[in-house]
Amino acid sequence: MPTIETIISPALFHLYEGGLEHKNVVVIDILRATTTICVAFANGAKEILPVAKPEDAAAMQQMGWVAAAERHGETVEGFDLGNSPQDYTQERVSGQKIALTTTNGTRALQMSGAAKNIFVGSFLNLKTLTEYLRNDNSDILLFCAGWKDKFNLEDTVFAGAVANRLAESFTISDDATLAAIDLYQKAETDLTEYLQKASHVNRFKSLHIETDLEACLKTNTLNVLPVFRNGSIQNQNHV
Amino acid sequence: MPTIETIISPALFHLYEGGLEHKNVVVIDILRATTTICVAFANGAKEILPVAKPEDAAAMQQMGWVAAAERHGETVEGFDLGNSPQDYTQERVSGQKIALTTTNGTRALQMSGAAKNIFVGSFLNLKTLTEYLRNDNSDILLFCAGWKDKFNLEDTVFAGAVANRLAESFTISDDATLAAIDLYQKAETDLTEYLQKASHVNRFKSLHIETDLEACLKTNTLNVLPVFRNGSIQNQNHV
Repeated sequence: MPTIETIISPALFHLYEGGLEHKNVVVIDILRATTTICVAFANGAKEILPVAKPEDAAAMQQMGWVAAAERHGETVEGFDLGNSPQDYTQERVSGQKIALTTTNGTRALQMSGAAKNIFVGSFLNLKTLTEYLRNDNSDILLFCAGWKDKFNLEDTVFAGAVANRLAESFTISDDATLAAIDLYQKAETDLTEYLQKASHVNRFKSLHIETDLEACLKTNTLNVLPVFRNGSIQNQNHV
Repeated sequence: MPTIETIISPALFHLYEGGLEHKNVVVIDILRATTTICVAFANGAKEILPVAKPEDAAAMQQMGWVAAAERHGETVEGFDLGNSPQDYTQERVSGQKIALTTTNGTRALQMSGAAKNIFVGSFLNLKTLTEYLRNDNSDILLFCAGWKDKFNLEDTVFAGAVANRLAESFTISDDATLAAIDLYQKAETDLTEYLQKASHVNRFKSLHIETDLEACLKTNTLNVLPVFRNGSIQNQNHV
């Protein structure tokens, strides 16, 4: 059976690079980049270009793209959108191309460049994502974007949710994935309640964006499968 | 209140180095280096010198030290002792100075050099260790030695055991420590049973050293507090 492994911080990515070209990578940045990307596609966005710096998004803005930039949890001044999924309404993103820069998520996508497929995962598209992964039957790397290279509770809990759904069809022998499953099983009855203690959620509270948490934890609400290929993200369900 | 943070891999150590001189570091390598060090002191060892390479231990052997070396879980040929706690009997270590090299534990000790105190933690001396940490009332870094820089279930569960005992006297806001506590609480009713799934335990099984697992998980059996200072380890309870 193929394997599932979990990378709990980008700083450990180099330990998992072997055979990357045969693996499906899922990039996970629950609060909020990968959740927001799922919402954007569900609301009709055509393409999302993850870029490293706000200046890069601003440059795309000059060419007619919608520019989205967040740093340290806040929308960068002068940009069309930030990184809150609630900003990405049908009205604002349908038919649009979006240039997006975020603190951790963009970096994780770019690091994964050599993989067989690079998917964008969130609780919202958990079912669609795991169905694809089960059918494709390749080794999986669950890549938690973390927060400035530190371990992050919500990303790891989501990795556990993916592994938990796929446990019957994959070999799970690495400790990080086993721990992620246990954390998810502890959290699943009430994700919002469980994640109240996460440091990132407390960072949210100080930014007055608490309602985002609920928006980021709605499970299996969206039938989208964003895939990062040739430098940009498209919705595979529409390609 | 002082804080507790958990470093789940040596590859993340650099994220926690700030203010290290004011922090108590606990180096954790449950299977088996830090467990073995506790047993050695309980059985009367005078001093343990952690060294980087088997050659270094061999050099000390020429000077009358007991030489202990393990690589990839096995005793190196020609050495007096390996890294199994069951080897460190009173008969073999009482009154002795021991030069010890291990895969992950030695490295973590040496990385922590600048800390206020560097303690050696294991389930065996959990009570003695946590009593000291509570009284000393300084910030704590729980440093999991891991396995070749990967996340490691038994070390993280032990970090959770320490944090769980100290939760009332310390602020715990980092996600890694919160996760470690949840994993410990899941494991504590039967540590041996819980850790059967750990990848390191399965590595043990393939090396036919299963009985070591039980020896490494005996909780609060030893009243020792090994401390790493000026390059070597002594038992603080005897200094």
